[in-house]
Amino acid sequence: MAAGSSFGKNFKVTTFGESHGAALGCVIDGCPAGLSLSVDDLMPFLIRRKPGQSEFTTARGEDDEPEILSGVFEGQTTGTPIAIIFRNKDQHSKDYSDIADVFRPGHADYTFQSKFGIRDYRGGGRSSGRETVARVAAGAVAAKLLSGYGISAKAYTKSIGPISISGYDESEKNDLYMPDRNAYEKAAKYIEGLRSEGNSAGGVIECVIFGVPAGLGDPVFDKLDALLAHAMLSIGAVKGFEIGDGFGAALATGIDNNDAFIPDKDGGIIKATNHSGGVLGGISDGADIIFRCAVKPTASISMLQQTMDKNGNPKEIMIRGRHDPVIVPRAVVVVEAMAYLVAADALISGLGDKLETLTTG
Amino acid sequence: MAAGSSFGKNFKVTTFGESHGAALGCVIDGCPAGLSLSVDDLMPFLIRRKPGQSEFTTARGEDDEPEILSGVFEGQTTGTPIAIIFRNKDQHSKDYSDIADVFRPGHADYTFQSKFGIRDYRGGGRSSGRETVARVAAGAVAAKLLSGYGISAKAYTKSIGPISISGYDESEKNDLYMPDRNAYEKAAKYIEGLRSEGNSAGGVIECVIFGVPAGLGDPVFDKLDALLAHAMLSIGAVKGFEIGDGFGAALATGIDNNDAFIPDKDGGIIKATNHSGGVLGGISDGADIIFRCAVKPTASISMLQQTMDKNGNPKEIMIRGRHDPVIVPRAVVVVEAMAYLVAADALISGLGDKLETLTTG
Amino acid sequence: MAAGSSFGKNFKVTTFGESHGAALGCVIDGCPAGLSLSVDDLMPFLIRRKPGQSEFTTARGEDDEPEILSGVFEGQTTGTPIAIIFRNKDQHSKDYSDIADVFRPGHADYTFQSKFGIRDYRGGGRSSGRETVARVAAGAVAAKLLSGYGISAKAYTKSIGPISISGYDESEKNDLYMPDRNAYEKAAKYIEGLRSEGNSAGGVIECVIFGVPAGLGDPVFDKLDALLAHAMLSIGAVKGFEIGDGFGAALATGIDNNDAFIPDKDGGIIKATNHSGGVLGGISDGADIIFRCAVKPTASISMLQQTMDKNGNPKEIMIRGRHDPVIVPRAVVVVEAMAYLVAADALISGLGDKLETLTTG
Amino acid sequence: MAAGSSFGKNFKVTTFGESHGAALGCVIDGCPAGLSLSVDDLMPFLIRRKPGQSEFTTARGEDDEPEILSGVFEGQTTGTPIAIIFRNKDQHSKDYSDIADVFRPGHADYTFQSKFGIRDYRGGGRSSGRETVARVAAGAVAAKLLSGYGISAKAYTKSIGPISISGYDESEKNDLYMPDRNAYEKAAKYIEGLRSEGNSAGGVIECVIFGVPAGLGDPVFDKLDALLAHAMLSIGAVKGFEIGDGFGAALATGIDNNDAFIPDKDGGIIKATNHSGGVLGGISDGADIIFRCAVKPTASISMLQQTMDKNGNPKEIMIRGRHDPVIVPRAVVVVEAMAYLVAADALISGLGDKLETLTTG
Repeated sequence: MAAGSSFGKNFKVTTFGESHGAALGCVIDGCPAGLSLSVDDLMPFLIRRKPGQSEFTTARGEDDEPEILSGVFEGQTTGTPIAIIFRNKDQHSKDYSDIADVFRPGHADYTFQSKFGIRDYRGGGRSSGRETVARVAAGAVAAKLLSGYGISAKAYTKSIGPISISGYDESEKNDLYMPDRNAYEKAAKYIEGLRSEGNSAGGVIECVIFGVPAGLGDPVFDKLDALLAHAMLSIGAVKGFEIGDGFGAALATGIDNNDAFIPDKDGGIIKATNHSGGVLGGISDGADIIFRCAVKPTASISMLQQTMDKNGNPKEIMIRGRHDPVIVPRAVVVVEAMAYLVAADALISGLGDKLETLTTG
Repeated sequence: MAAGSSFGKNFKVTTFGESHGAALGCVIDGCPAGLSLSVDDLMPFLIRRKPGQSEFTTARGEDDEPEILSGVFEGQTTGTPIAIIFRNKDQHSKDYSDIADVFRPGHADYTFQSKFGIRDYRGGGRSSGRETVARVAAGAVAAKLLSGYGISAKAYTKSIGPISISGYDESEKNDLYMPDRNAYEKAAKYIEGLRSEGNSAGGVIECVIFGVPAGLGDPVFDKLDALLAHAMLSIGAVKGFEIGDGFGAALATGIDNNDAFIPDKDGGIIKATNHSGGVLGGISDGADIIFRCAVKPTASISMLQQTMDKNGNPKEIMIRGRHDPVIVPRAVVVVEAMAYLVAADALISGLGDKLETLTTG
Repeated sequence: MAAGSSFGKNFKVTTFGESHGAALGCVIDGCPAGLSLSVDDLMPFLIRRKPGQSEFTTARGEDDEPEILSGVFEGQTTGTPIAIIFRNKDQHSKDYSDIADVFRPGHADYTFQSKFGIRDYRGGGRSSGRETVARVAAGAVAAKLLSGYGISAKAYTKSIGPISISGYDESEKNDLYMPDRNAYEKAAKYIEGLRSEGNSAGGVIECVIFGVPAGLGDPVFDKLDALLAHAMLSIGAVKGFEIGDGFGAALATGIDNNDAFIPDKDGGIIKATNHSGGVLGGISDGADIIFRCAVKPTASISMLQQTMDKNGNPKEIMIRGRHDPVIVPRAVVVVEAMAYLVAADALISGLGDKLETLTTG
Repeated sequence: MAAGSSFGKNFKVTTFGESHGAALGCVIDGCPAGLSLSVDDLMPFLIRRKPGQSEFTTARGEDDEPEILSGVFEGQTTGTPIAIIFRNKDQHSKDYSDIADVFRPGHADYTFQSKFGIRDYRGGGRSSGRETVARVAAGAVAAKLLSGYGISAKAYTKSIGPISISGYDESEKNDLYMPDRNAYEKAAKYIEGLRSEGNSAGGVIECVIFGVPAGLGDPVFDKLDALLAHAMLSIGAVKGFEIGDGFGAALATGIDNNDAFIPDKDGGIIKATNHSGGVLGGISDGADIIFRCAVKPTASISMLQQTMDKNGNPKEIMIRGRHDPVIVPRAVVVVEAMAYLVAADALISGLGDKLETLTTG
């Protein structure tokens, strides 16, 4: 088996943990020394991921209290691995026997069983959305690092089901992270309708990374957009990725899709448009990096579904309990976190690109 | 700088070479020993990638003659690295001084210059489409390996600009690799129209991987779909990736998007539908793996474009010479090759998943 | 910075933690599913590493109580990452201000400060011998896995200072892990003499790995002996590694150093001698793998030493407190643990070597 | 199978090729752009490795003419992979049928057969000493890079069999690379005596890396000395590694082994002695890095040896042809090359260690 729980080459994150085990967490290896860091830097990100904050995210007794176990001394990173854990509370309180032997449609129950011959069925185990708490903590560390270089990421809900934003009004923050009041209201109704029947919705998350200088990304296989795609598809429920005009570029013609280079006001070079989404040939081109992720509807629905059990017997299943009717709003900060991880690794990995600026520090 | 020219963990491919350097090639490290292999196994793939085969792909004097330098003995792989090279012919024959200092819109000229402070400007250098010849050769080796396990991949043109196939008729092979005669004829006219004005078209490539057993892929970061997304976005000109219903899943509801599990005729478990595209929780679910890639229009167009030169002066550029008015048909086999590389690595990486089937050979 | 806290490719261990931070631990990624595992499997290894067990290892209030946070469900590994942590107790109880600004000779204080510009000076921080507790836990998991394949490792003290064992009597277990009663008694006196003057001793640890089948190891760079050397030199205080006859082979002639192949009683092939130490061309040859590590004397001594402080001022230092007069006995189990990690990774990494035995499980 | 033909993380080298295949070579991925490089930079290293240059290295028709295939443009590296190949000449000229089915003692024939079930038996195939030509070429590139940072490596023969140098007189260059005229003359006679009876000798190579600043190396697993040990044991025939006092440190006491820190003439910090060999806690300490490798006697000897064939039949073997009676002198430059590879990777990997000096170039 190839170990698949690490991401990044020079700013490397390893995660661990199941939704109902003792704890989840991450180890960040390669964070430069001398960065001021505390739990307070993590909380704004973790709070955005937390369930139970709105009518669209169900309170489930999760507790996202991070503990930094290593790598920080007197408020600063030391260059050694930063381990952060989150204890699971009440992990023994629920009865999961009804799903122990049955494969929930749309979930990873069957595939984990096929791969490993065993699975921690409690709450989805390793494939639970709870796994993302570790990613968000790591992303918060990357965000803190990048803030010193003027790099920031901003993700938001682009659409819920068929309802898309038509503009972006930053003041319109809401519990769907959908920055268009009109679209938000329609989306809220749409979700409410689906929830009332036990059904669920999907959507699209858009993310912009601001301030990335031209020159990051490692062709040919570790192109910046290839790593972003890898990062995003590694998030459970994400089924598609596009950068810049994305699938729209397939409909365009060359003269419309190419971005002209023009002088900026300081004598530098910028692009007149940004169809490329800030990446050309796999390397950042200095424009905003903009990409979108398709998120499928929540697989856990309170409707009768046909399935099978471990022994090959057909079963009908009705998933009990309360579930998010849409996971898009909670995934917004996860997308942002993964974007930060990609950018931080690209920044550090690019340090030795040119002989002229290579320095032994 | 993080070396970015390798792909895969246990079936690992490293590529090298510029479009107008001495040669391009790949090193395949980790191919199991005992696979019968010769140049004949590579040619069917390489021929599909070769330019100048139709009115849509311009003959440019490329020569895709592979030479296997190592790793094969008496017609069999030996387990040692397989190096394959392709000599570039006539690499000094052309005058590239017109693009030496000017950044072509839509190309990687500016970003390579920004990253490295130097670039081999001849024909795009490392960022040329010619780089894919090495990927295709490596993919052909992976295909040969996988054929023994009943795994095969098939890519084809799903759409060109606004023209999509409405069905799939396998007998309808044509120079656009578009398996629908009616759509093909429309697409051919569409491309011809654009070419006549010096413009270019994009499109969508769909790929199906058949025969992948349930259980491949390494959560949480090396999910099978995450690796496919990484692989596809690493292909120049690919701007989007989606698996299964992809962006369509964002529009669906849970009850429609979930695939029911049902018994197959042999008492096993299959899915009644395949909205997931053959991957659940990042692990293959036994269904066909189906995904799509968005390909942007050819950046090299014979129309006047605004740009800048290295010294920060605005320039107008008209790219000389003949160029493919669409690169989709040539990219079809590249998508297929990358799919084979992902599948081969996943197959080998999955060997130690379960204690019960782990064997020392 | 390249993240350096992970070891192994398919059975991969990542460690974290400082001697006086909140906790130390490891994440094991790639352990096959279905292995029965509990804290009880770790304890025999951890107990051997624990300080304060003899007159040669100082009690320092360390507490090696492992907690398994993830990857084990109902007593079995699930194939997901296994995280294990060890809480540090009383980490705030001591005053380290005397070494906060002074570089202890023989320690990593100066080099960590040079590399990172900051260091957790409490008890050596990340460079403390306490770091090995995480390695030993991981090694215990590897040992459990390998026990099912008939592979086991055994390390012991070969010499302390100038006193070497002259034979091996397994019944002679003692607190120096020196399997020769006569040598043990001399070594104990030798150490006692050094301790009484505040000085310290070094020694050599020998390790044998039994039961490794011929065929493991990945030439050319990941040869089995190269990985063992990497593993052993990654242990603090290890200054040398040799396999088989090692440095003695440099003195031998070809006819004496070559091992003849002869038939074994079952019609197989074995070697008449084992000068190679069980590895030929970087691949296991079926014989016992035998290697030795040189361990330097404890750097912490209670004698006056000349050094410098952070500000470039000469200082004299006398390291306070009780310290192990020799670290060899405690390093024995660390050597064994690292040997298990190398063997487990080689076993899993070798699964796809041959087409004929490759199976999708 | 885990691909084992790559070395390094950010300055990464992949090698390929068999002694009697079409060609051998390397791909260097991660070399910074803007380094002036040509074949002329490689030749001084390659010439030192070349056989047939003295009475101790047999002429075998090898031809070490490198061809740079990629990554260099107008005399400068471009940041893209640098591929270098060496054609094998006359690879079909010899009859190897006598060793096709027989396992030569001391060679990797049996282990390659065990691992892969097939081997290229011609001249040792991948396990031939000829494989090192690719390492030396890559090391020469690393040396060129490091020369701009004042870092250089120097390896030489420390001993041949029982004859050691007692001093170092740089003017005493000779065909054994043994820098002590008196020892050289004794060693030459010693080798001649062994050769006359068809036997062979081993020896020890010492290497010093000058100019490495304090602060390179990545604890805890990628310590600088751990990577050096890995690199050296990956060279065929190397059976031991020690740094600084090495195995001698095991005999010393703490007060003798610790290096005092003292002020240098510029107000900086240096060490009064260098028992550590320039590495403390796995990180360079600013002193010369000094290490030694034990090289076993040439396995190919013209004496009758007992062995087995593939079918399990006992055989006697007398290896035909001319062979180096000692490989130490040819391995000197290989040790140096691997030292350069480790240092180059450590230099680039250390760029992001500290926030204060981290720059985006």
